[in-house]
Amino acid sequence: MEVKQILHMNKGDDETSYAKNSKIQETVLKILGSDLVPKQSFGIADLGCSSGPNSLLLISEVMDVIHAEYSRLSQPSLQLQSSTREFRVYLNDLFSNDFNTIFVSLPEFYDKFKQDFKDTTTSEGPDLFISAVPGSFYGRLFPNKSLHFVHSSSSLHWLSQVPPGLDTALNKGKIYISKSSPECVKEAYSQQFHKDFSVFLKSRAEEIVSGGRMVLSFMGRRLSDPTIEESCYLQWELLANALMTLVLEVTSYYRHQYPPLEPDMCSVLR
Amino acid sequence: MEVKQILHMNKGDDETSYAKNSKIQETVLKILGSDLVPKQSFGIADLGCSSGPNSLLLISEVMDVIHAEYSRLSQPSLQLQSSTREFRVYLNDLFSNDFNTIFVSLPEFYDKFKQDFKDTTTSEGPDLFISAVPGSFYGRLFPNKSLHFVHSSSSLHWLSQVPPGLDTALNKGKIYISKSSPECVKEAYSQQFHKDFSVFLKSRAEEIVSGGRMVLSFMGRRLSDPTIEESCYLQWELLANALMTLVLEVTSYYRHQYPPLEPDMCSVLR
Repeated sequence: MEVKQILHMNKGDDETSYAKNSKIQETVLKILGSDLVPKQSFGIADLGCSSGPNSLLLISEVMDVIHAEYSRLSQPSLQLQSSTREFRVYLNDLFSNDFNTIFVSLPEFYDKFKQDFKDTTTSEGPDLFISAVPGSFYGRLFPNKSLHFVHSSSSLHWLSQVPPGLDTALNKGKIYISKSSPECVKEAYSQQFHKDFSVFLKSRAEEIVSGGRMVLSFMGRRLSDPTIEESCYLQWELLANALMTLVLEVTSYYRHQYPPLEPDMCSVLR
Repeated sequence: MEVKQILHMNKGDDETSYAKNSKIQETVLKILGSDLVPKQSFGIADLGCSSGPNSLLLISEVMDVIHAEYSRLSQPSLQLQSSTREFRVYLNDLFSNDFNTIFVSLPEFYDKFKQDFKDTTTSEGPDLFISAVPGSFYGRLFPNKSLHFVHSSSSLHWLSQVPPGLDTALNKGKIYISKSSPECVKEAYSQQFHKDFSVFLKSRAEEIVSGGRMVLSFMGRRLSDPTIEESCYLQWELLANALMTLVLEVTSYYRHQYPPLEPDMCSVLR
């Protein structure tokens, strides 16, 4: 499938639409400054790439941004001397992700890349090496100092696990932080986020070269109370109710998600 | 699934048995000399890894060999200072290969690696990064000078394509080199092998570090005549006959396989 076809497949204004997703491009453009391009060997990782049409979309946009910068930098005949000789693209998601579906789209992606980056004078261009790196980003995934740009979209609000030590009786009939949940449930989720995000940052710090960049977009909340409707928790109340109706008693399920408040993040970043 | 379980699943003495496959270990052991280990960052590629129990078997055996060498080299407490800090393992096959099935076996593989390579004093050890690199090995797959050991088993007798320019009328009713095939069919296959194997070697020469090693095992033939039974072509005659029975006329199918003669290979290697 052509990358262009993928772009056309996601019309409208909903969650997976190009209109919404293409906003990332602006951010990427700002963050991928010209001081980052060119490099002899340029490493890009998309963490939590998932499968489906959007899996290659981000990488496609990053490559478009780099190509625009690449073309601007010099005349075509000088490009090869002055620019990146190889791009290494790493697609990451969990072990059970459907990578097969992504891989069948790669030949077209390589063709487009070759066309875009071809030096019109010499018909040559840089190499592109795309690989899949299955595993959790809450831990090391890549060799030391191998990445220049890291991206993760809509993934980091998913915790590595349900916070340990939560007695199911504590949160009876609920699957997440609810109005009826005791303080220790909120605290456990907050602590788990703190732990996971710390591990994430520590791992990436090993993997990203000095001066490398990272764009992380994930669900957060503006208000301190995680149980109000604006914080998007209504869905978990409804799901808990639906489960209750089905099985009468929900005793062993906890959701492993936590959209952090700004201070949650700042405390880790400091 | 445990790697140990995989080893036990392939009993007996047939083509996929451990007994047959473990012979590679001896070769690997000889080729992976102690001058190759340790390296700060050690890159290993398995080209044409396929999917199924054997996909991780070769890598498992290579890691066992390295581990034996690793343990021999120094005392546990000195190991970390003197040895490899990270292993990069690349699994390659075509874009349509079933990588998903391999990936679900990786968590156990990582666990075994961690156990095997753990320094008993510090409980630490080197990192392992496994990734999938989909694409044809008849072309570049990996960054420049990134590999120390390359392996490919039972893959290189498959050509990148059916030799071009073969008029289907030339080989009427046959799908491969047959007793009735004109000389130009044999010549076309030989030339395609020559071209493909040259591209393969040239690509790997860019990717393997100076002093790196390569073990290639693939189907070849001992006798010059590619149409005799000993050269294993009976199967293609039978298949052609079966197809003829089904469709009455075989006009548009050619097999893209060529087990080379020794001189075929030597002429490329020179």
